[in-house]
Amino acid sequence: MEGLTHFGSEGQARMVEVGEKAETQRTATAQGLIEMHPDTLARIRAGQMGKGDVLGVARIAAIQAAKRTHELIPLCHLLGLTGVDVEFSDQDQPAAVRCQVTTRTRGRTGVEMEALTAVSVALLTIYDMCKAIDRGMVMRDIRLLEKQGGKTGLWRADAGNAE
Amino acid sequence: MEGLTHFGSEGQARMVEVGEKAETQRTATAQGLIEMHPDTLARIRAGQMGKGDVLGVARIAAIQAAKRTHELIPLCHLLGLTGVDVEFSDQDQPAAVRCQVTTRTRGRTGVEMEALTAVSVALLTIYDMCKAIDRGMVMRDIRLLEKQGGKTGLWRADAGNAE
Amino acid sequence: MEGLTHFGSEGQARMVEVGEKAETQRTATAQGLIEMHPDTLARIRAGQMGKGDVLGVARIAAIQAAKRTHELIPLCHLLGLTGVDVEFSDQDQPAAVRCQVTTRTRGRTGVEMEALTAVSVALLTIYDMCKAIDRGMVMRDIRLLEKQGGKTGLWRADAGNAE
Amino acid sequence: MEGLTHFGSEGQARMVEVGEKAETQRTATAQGLIEMHPDTLARIRAGQMGKGDVLGVARIAAIQAAKRTHELIPLCHLLGLTGVDVEFSDQDQPAAVRCQVTTRTRGRTGVEMEALTAVSVALLTIYDMCKAIDRGMVMRDIRLLEKQGGKTGLWRADAGNAE
Amino acid sequence: MEGLTHFGSEGQARMVEVGEKAETQRTATAQGLIEMHPDTLARIRAGQMGKGDVLGVARIAAIQAAKRTHELIPLCHLLGLTGVDVEFSDQDQPAAVRCQVTTRTRGRTGVEMEALTAVSVALLTIYDMCKAIDRGMVMRDIRLLEKQGGKTGLWRADAGNAE
Amino acid sequence: MEGLTHFGSEGQARMVEVGEKAETQRTATAQGLIEMHPDTLARIRAGQMGKGDVLGVARIAAIQAAKRTHELIPLCHLLGLTGVDVEFSDQDQPAAVRCQVTTRTRGRTGVEMEALTAVSVALLTIYDMCKAIDRGMVMRDIRLLEKQGGKTGLWRADAGNAE
Repeated sequence: MEGLTHFGSEGQARMVEVGEKAETQRTATAQGLIEMHPDTLARIRAGQMGKGDVLGVARIAAIQAAKRTHELIPLCHLLGLTGVDVEFSDQDQPAAVRCQVTTRTRGRTGVEMEALTAVSVALLTIYDMCKAIDRGMVMRDIRLLEKQGGKTGLWRADAGNAE
Repeated sequence: MEGLTHFGSEGQARMVEVGEKAETQRTATAQGLIEMHPDTLARIRAGQMGKGDVLGVARIAAIQAAKRTHELIPLCHLLGLTGVDVEFSDQDQPAAVRCQVTTRTRGRTGVEMEALTAVSVALLTIYDMCKAIDRGMVMRDIRLLEKQGGKTGLWRADAGNAE
Repeated sequence: MEGLTHFGSEGQARMVEVGEKAETQRTATAQGLIEMHPDTLARIRAGQMGKGDVLGVARIAAIQAAKRTHELIPLCHLLGLTGVDVEFSDQDQPAAVRCQVTTRTRGRTGVEMEALTAVSVALLTIYDMCKAIDRGMVMRDIRLLEKQGGKTGLWRADAGNAE
Repeated sequence: MEGLTHFGSEGQARMVEVGEKAETQRTATAQGLIEMHPDTLARIRAGQMGKGDVLGVARIAAIQAAKRTHELIPLCHLLGLTGVDVEFSDQDQPAAVRCQVTTRTRGRTGVEMEALTAVSVALLTIYDMCKAIDRGMVMRDIRLLEKQGGKTGLWRADAGNAE
Repeated sequence: MEGLTHFGSEGQARMVEVGEKAETQRTATAQGLIEMHPDTLARIRAGQMGKGDVLGVARIAAIQAAKRTHELIPLCHLLGLTGVDVEFSDQDQPAAVRCQVTTRTRGRTGVEMEALTAVSVALLTIYDMCKAIDRGMVMRDIRLLEKQGGKTGLWRADAGNAE
Repeated sequence: MEGLTHFGSEGQARMVEVGEKAETQRTATAQGLIEMHPDTLARIRAGQMGKGDVLGVARIAAIQAAKRTHELIPLCHLLGLTGVDVEFSDQDQPAAVRCQVTTRTRGRTGVEMEALTAVSVALLTIYDMCKAIDRGMVMRDIRLLEKQGGKTGLWRADAGNAE
């Protein structure tokens, strides 16, 4: 097990030097869900049909948050994302909305944090827009599904980890 | 069940008018956790003793994110937080770090989103700092525990919801 | 004609002191439009029916920009908006989308700049989303329609000014 | 007429993938004007001679806004501008200040939005600084004049469009 | 000597609760200077007469930084400044530009950090604009001169401290 | 002595075009210190041993500020830092904490402003966290120590300048 790279030799936090890393194509996919009352899910589904599009707002929030990840996560590098995709799906047992985000760049560091941050902000935005009717919503299972590119190459959450 | 207040009569998103609400003391407490490999937790615990303080960095990230919630959550009002507290605890079965944030203001809207955003960013920061040794960490059970103040008064996650 | 208040006695820019002003209810409404090729307007109208909702994205951009006006306009005060409404309408002769924004606060300064900034960013977002098919779009007639509150009270664009 | 690239196959907003595009030299020039009372223009002209430099402040606001375009326009990519120039001119019939901005980068996406955003914020800043004496100012004819670089190469507003 | 209020009982950083403090009129004045080569100062002085106004740009940067202090200083509260004044003066022995900033608010916390941050960013901006001709410039003696308001009332740098 | 490059031929501020510059490895190191009462220094030193880690918070603030330099300094280019290191040391005569920051990138412009901004924000954060016990602290001698890369190559503060 290698070390926590975000610290120097005396334990001080630092932004890890990545100048020697190659610029490669990098991709990450993350996922998470928000559980809610079935009535809340019914409302969200109704909105997709034209009135009160909760997921449309959450999608924009997710894309914008991906771009600002370096401001939120202290030791994260600024990078120029080349693309972001945000997908939502829903389920009944239990009632929940699932969000999956894929981020891509050509650069010297991975884009895992951008994907995870986008998922988190999407779920927070759903919470915000529905909290007047359902304060008990719970955000769960926010995790990285897959990353590609860079020295460590492909990584996939294994079956056990991925629920 | 009242409506989704973040939409106008034709379903268009809006920032809800709160000018008529009273300025009251408002408090919210939110919580969440990040599960990890036991070795990762051991590293974090070691850092608290002076080398590589993961939780110290995550705490600062959480406080700063609380102040920027209105930038991240599209329909959230800007408000001046009067205080933020961030607490971490850890557990072994399963290995995890738990984060709890309390936010307070005197104002016309609640501070639930500020507390939830701070918890999310704290967990994301822990992920970022430990991902070199453990990409399979999972963020779970991010939820509101309690809110006080405003017209709806006190709300507490019920026992069932709150695990 | 009174002076340009954003300058001190020696012509230096400053953020005008408003501490002595009363906290009153303040409202502003601004408007603007973006002219485009009729085919572009047809695409936007089609999107309102569920595929590719240009105006839904522009509305979110407008609300978020209203909250960040003080960061964009150098001598503008930070204030906590109590509400923002963004409305779109369209017309055929010439083909255009019109955006109207109303901003409200209780505070010591007016919210005209917040309304005007939100209109501008809504129109810019429409341009961004449609520029792949129509680079010749033109933003026009961005103006204040009405403001209320504060020492100067009600102001309305007169008929001549307001087209 | 090709499609609105900012939407996926199901109409969902996305940040378009540009990773396959070539890094080329890209330039854009945009323009717009703000009409005002002749007395207001006289004040602005006087300021250029040393007291109350409205246009100097607006120029800085424009440059800073160009750098933050990706934060304001939801689906816009972050890119590193290599240069920004902001020019003002004025006219008497009708009394107005015209702003022209040129933005440049080496990158995978164009810089039209950066130029248009900078023009808009320049005009908004002029409005802000002069609104105490002239609330009826109107921003007009904000448009792209020319863009170069990228797959679509050179584009110029045609004579008819460009007034 | 009372304690470091930015830490909780176990040493953890926190944003101090100020909800119980009274909203009073608060003012702070800070100062600092940047020493430079006499030729650099000559250039800056020339710019004040119309070509290349270094101090005009630095003044805008200072005002904008004051508004964003809470984003830069992790444990600082967001507050709505009611006014900001930035003054520059220069001296020959040694060649230097001095910057003095006064910030004001009505609120529950002081505005010392806003004044100090504005001074720092003004000096940094001067450095940036002149560094092509003088990289050896040094920023010195950035300090609080005076604060008023709040429970601790008036504080003034004593003669000894204030040089 | 060459000119102030941040101005155009008519004295107008501009963001200098750097598109023609080569992408090279660039590094900068800056330094500064904050003088304080010996009791304040004693408190900070005690915090390093686990309770109230002032320097840990200041380090995070410095790294985050380095990433946002282009937002603070009006004519500064956005660039992607590849690494940031922040070191603190302290001294007794006079009692002070010294901060040194090294920033690195591969790009077309230098990273001096990022290093100087990080130092300034580190010192401001120390001030903020200790001001309840020592308002008379003074920030001094913020300067560039060394830069490498780009057309002008290596630059070092000469012995005389560097104290």
